[in-house]
Amino acid sequence: MADAPPVGPTHGRPADSPVPCDLLVEAGWVVPVEPHGVVLRDHAVAVREGAIVALLPIADARARFTAKDTVSRPDGVLLPGLVNAHCHNPMTLLRGVADDLPLKTWLQDHIWPIEAAVIAPGFVADGIALAIAEMLRGGTTCCNENYFFPDVQAATYKRHGFRARVGLPVIDFPTAWAAGDDEYFDKAGDVHDQWRHDPLVGTAFAPHAPYTVSDANFERIRMLSDQLDIPVHLHLHETAQEVEQSQRKHGQRAIARIDRLGLLNDRLIAVHMTQLTDGEIALCAQRGASVVHCPESNLKLASGFCRVADLGRAGVNVAIGTDGCASNNDLDMFGEMRTAALLAKAVANDAAAFDAASALRAATLGGAKALGFDHLVGSIEAGKQADLIVVDMAPLETQPLHHVLSQLVYATGRQQVTDAWIAGRPKLRDRALVDMDEAAIVANARQWRDRIAAVDLSGGARS
Amino acid sequence: MADAPPVGPTHGRPADSPVPCDLLVEAGWVVPVEPHGVVLRDHAVAVREGAIVALLPIADARARFTAKDTVSRPDGVLLPGLVNAHCHNPMTLLRGVADDLPLKTWLQDHIWPIEAAVIAPGFVADGIALAIAEMLRGGTTCCNENYFFPDVQAATYKRHGFRARVGLPVIDFPTAWAAGDDEYFDKAGDVHDQWRHDPLVGTAFAPHAPYTVSDANFERIRMLSDQLDIPVHLHLHETAQEVEQSQRKHGQRAIARIDRLGLLNDRLIAVHMTQLTDGEIALCAQRGASVVHCPESNLKLASGFCRVADLGRAGVNVAIGTDGCASNNDLDMFGEMRTAALLAKAVANDAAAFDAASALRAATLGGAKALGFDHLVGSIEAGKQADLIVVDMAPLETQPLHHVLSQLVYATGRQQVTDAWIAGRPKLRDRALVDMDEAAIVANARQWRDRIAAVDLSGGARS
Repeated sequence: MADAPPVGPTHGRPADSPVPCDLLVEAGWVVPVEPHGVVLRDHAVAVREGAIVALLPIADARARFTAKDTVSRPDGVLLPGLVNAHCHNPMTLLRGVADDLPLKTWLQDHIWPIEAAVIAPGFVADGIALAIAEMLRGGTTCCNENYFFPDVQAATYKRHGFRARVGLPVIDFPTAWAAGDDEYFDKAGDVHDQWRHDPLVGTAFAPHAPYTVSDANFERIRMLSDQLDIPVHLHLHETAQEVEQSQRKHGQRAIARIDRLGLLNDRLIAVHMTQLTDGEIALCAQRGASVVHCPESNLKLASGFCRVADLGRAGVNVAIGTDGCASNNDLDMFGEMRTAALLAKAVANDAAAFDAASALRAATLGGAKALGFDHLVGSIEAGKQADLIVVDMAPLETQPLHHVLSQLVYATGRQQVTDAWIAGRPKLRDRALVDMDEAAIVANARQWRDRIAAVDLSGGARS
Repeated sequence: MADAPPVGPTHGRPADSPVPCDLLVEAGWVVPVEPHGVVLRDHAVAVREGAIVALLPIADARARFTAKDTVSRPDGVLLPGLVNAHCHNPMTLLRGVADDLPLKTWLQDHIWPIEAAVIAPGFVADGIALAIAEMLRGGTTCCNENYFFPDVQAATYKRHGFRARVGLPVIDFPTAWAAGDDEYFDKAGDVHDQWRHDPLVGTAFAPHAPYTVSDANFERIRMLSDQLDIPVHLHLHETAQEVEQSQRKHGQRAIARIDRLGLLNDRLIAVHMTQLTDGEIALCAQRGASVVHCPESNLKLASGFCRVADLGRAGVNVAIGTDGCASNNDLDMFGEMRTAALLAKAVANDAAAFDAASALRAATLGGAKALGFDHLVGSIEAGKQADLIVVDMAPLETQPLHHVLSQLVYATGRQQVTDAWIAGRPKLRDRALVDMDEAAIVANARQWRDRIAAVDLSGGARS
């Protein structure tokens, strides 16, 4: 970006010396997210070497730039790619494998036995490939991954040119990924070292949850996350039971314990947070922690309600995540953003709470900030990476078009996403995946269906 | 149907005397809804003179029937068309016109001034045409309409071959439809008389709400609904304020008042019902009233949470509705069904509550029963009208396909609906509207956008 020319809405070069660029995307409307709530009519974004060099009126863009590729979407809204701030994407292969069950039955009789039988690098790579295809078709260009085999995760995201943080798992018992504490940390260090300078894929520590990670391991993670300057991605206050258990075992609620261990800080990505007191909300704001709201998972597992509007009012950065496909059952960030906006009003008992612009911000810049990627993505600003999507407003489902932000959040379906770019590279064009073979991905998913159906769920009845 | 042959899964004719039929729909899976929770593999439905004559394995169907038209969907699920049990479809033209506002501001400064300026037969007809197109593309084949100008509503639904109950409005103040009580009832009688024998369009009384209709008018409605044997479609216990106001004004909660007036019976379609005591749930079950759950509207307007799982357990018939597009903002019954299933679990604090089969039943047979149409539609059974839809399971968003019912409720998007028939007539084929001009509908919606934007909202700021 150092050599990008200083062009932008207010820094014009003379119209008589057009600047070359790689891509010009012209749209009927542009929602840059920053500044907040703004909708620009008939604007364009110029991209060079993967980065945004200007956002300006279409007529000005055509005068100032000569583009190798121009995409014109007069019925489209151009916005930053959505950021899915919490997912377990290998589990996309378990979509709908067991639903409508109590949490314990679901985990112990279905998810865990199936995972025990199938978790391996191939499962992780294939599940993530399916997830990437689904995310791109739904306008998501960046995600925060949390599963085993982060080495495979990172390689898979990189291979498909998809932006991600991959979680370096830590949990107090042996898994297919590591046999014990030292192996978890050794492998975490190795994966981090390998990806530390990658422009697209980064790492985060991913201690599973307060009830599965010891104080000693949390302290080790705290020290390392400080040293390496990477986020900590943690399920926190997901259920009332978790909080009660922490109280019994540690004499304090999980948030207080995490704070005591020094992890409640601006690197913490706290996921779920359905159980929050006023004091805990204030503490999160003070410490600068981000909260990832996963409304559909929280509803489906009857975990509780996150006080999103109160978090926002307190100044806590709020992001949105789908959680895994075994508890959602999709990676639809348009749907999740809508559910978040609707649910927040009912929870706050205020129809004006968490408005459309705030929901869209949480699904873009809020996610980028939570992941520590907000210097790179999350808004359309000169200097940021060109992670962009276009949403078609022409279908009758979004007509009449009274207000663009309302329509994006309350009426748009993910199938209206026509185009997506990551770091300026086209990933979806006219709804077709540019560099992924959709038929092969579906065929592979079908093969996994048969393998998973063959898993012996001894003791557990299939739903 | 009197002359339909008695064929069905168990009543075969000899394979050597094929029976002519109009339509044979073959699908990879059939979900008949009745019996509950059943998924049939590789089955077909035969249709003659608008009615279902048989549901049977594809091989048997090919042997028994010679069809004028055969539609084969090996990757598709065939199910009954969805029933939207509460909508205000002319308001589709107000989609997103004002959002994220307190209820009073929303109504008084936006919706009512706009309606005052635009309500007329043309607005009603154009809004309903847009709504029908949206509903068909989303798998909805029947709706329960509640707005002014039921004469225009009925004619519009009939013209487009769409099944509907239209509401005969009664409200204690003058509107564009009627100047006073007698005119409301006279016009209601006229519209009912005109449509009483129509096979596709029926009527219902639609008293607006307990707080806008007097005891005398409710009593008149009760008498007439008994005489004419038509349902009563009523917003009831939508908000806590409504219940408190009833307590103050009438000395009893609205449900108790409606019961006192004799309207809490098996013809009552009670919409919203977010405020329910255990006693009220038991009373609804005892009286046989149906409840229409509108989860997205209830969330968006912060009205409250309906106790859907408790209603179901008590034996109350539960249906699902989208409400109007000014408070939703779509007519997406797949989305509404999903939100209903997710939300019910959180409200009941039970991840096993209101499972996928129950949600699908509410969105089909539950709606049909609420409308008094369950002898006609809501399930795939020989003798019922052929209101059918096909949902494509091939897209990667519903792969892998572990369980069809889970996928339909938790992962399917309405854009996966490929085909729809109403009374055996094709309405959607390969996602194209068969007898509606989509481009003309969109162009008309755009023209309404400009007219609505020009309305003077004196005193109210536009969002």
